[in-house]
Amino acid sequence: MQKHIISALVVNKPGVLSHAASLFSARGFNIDSLAVGETEQPDLSRMTIVVAGDEAILEQVRKQLAKLIDVVKVQDFSGTSYVERDLALMRVHSPVSRRGEILELADIFRARVVDVGRTDVMLELSGTEDKIEAMVDLLRPYGIREMVRTGRIALQRSSRD
Amino acid sequence: MQKHIISALVVNKPGVLSHAASLFSARGFNIDSLAVGETEQPDLSRMTIVVAGDEAILEQVRKQLAKLIDVVKVQDFSGTSYVERDLALMRVHSPVSRRGEILELADIFRARVVDVGRTDVMLELSGTEDKIEAMVDLLRPYGIREMVRTGRIALQRSSRD
Repeated sequence: MQKHIISALVVNKPGVLSHAASLFSARGFNIDSLAVGETEQPDLSRMTIVVAGDEAILEQVRKQLAKLIDVVKVQDFSGTSYVERDLALMRVHSPVSRRGEILELADIFRARVVDVGRTDVMLELSGTEDKIEAMVDLLRPYGIREMVRTGRIALQRSSRD
Repeated sequence: MQKHIISALVVNKPGVLSHAASLFSARGFNIDSLAVGETEQPDLSRMTIVVAGDEAILEQVRKQLAKLIDVVKVQDFSGTSYVERDLALMRVHSPVSRRGEILELADIFRARVVDVGRTDVMLELSGTEDKIEAMVDLLRPYGIREMVRTGRIALQRSSRD
């Protein structure tokens, strides 16, 4: 099933987030990822939700979301031209003997080393989901001890007409 | 009020997210940011929640969260040694005459240019919240047309004992 990236501009108020999330869970949609953060306007947040599921039901949920009093605007990026990014922090098992290999990979993916322990390194990587998945696949054999990801955020490209 | 970064490892199931978010909104906590994404284990997600509020009530919410059936582990990073990162995409007004200045700022902050339009550029910036705020402050006079942020994610530093 195609994944949809839905972006909602919402008022900063307690309850908006759980209300929006419950619209999806009430229909049995599992949210792949969700990111809520600040925007260009201090009283508004932007929620970026990634979900897969039945198109018709998703369209209903999108409309319900748009009707919520604290929701200013809803966009579905599917079929449009947009930029998406995800961010990961990973703590990778890295005895001194393997550190060079891991740093080489970090270099190739333009990941940043943000912490070094005796037997592990912490890497920060941003990029498209595909890029992050590719790096995760290459690091998995070393042992990914912990990983946290933001989930995707997206913005429409500016028109070039 | 001090901000708390709370990280919860949860089972990937519809409803977990809205349930967790409702624990905070029921007590009137506004969530500053929330990021939910994949982890090192395919059936688990990690939620990173940033909130400010009364310490005693927050401690209650943290305990309630830990008791939810689909919540595996809850950590509060306050007072510990951790790495935090936030990611922003920004579309900045940028006529050709100002583009050089904006690209200079991007370079200083190690931001990446991810799209260029006739009158704007889109920048991707990851870093601590302070770093992102600093760049946003410097870009605001040019006109930030749109901004989306992931909110913070965090991982404990490895022990150096």
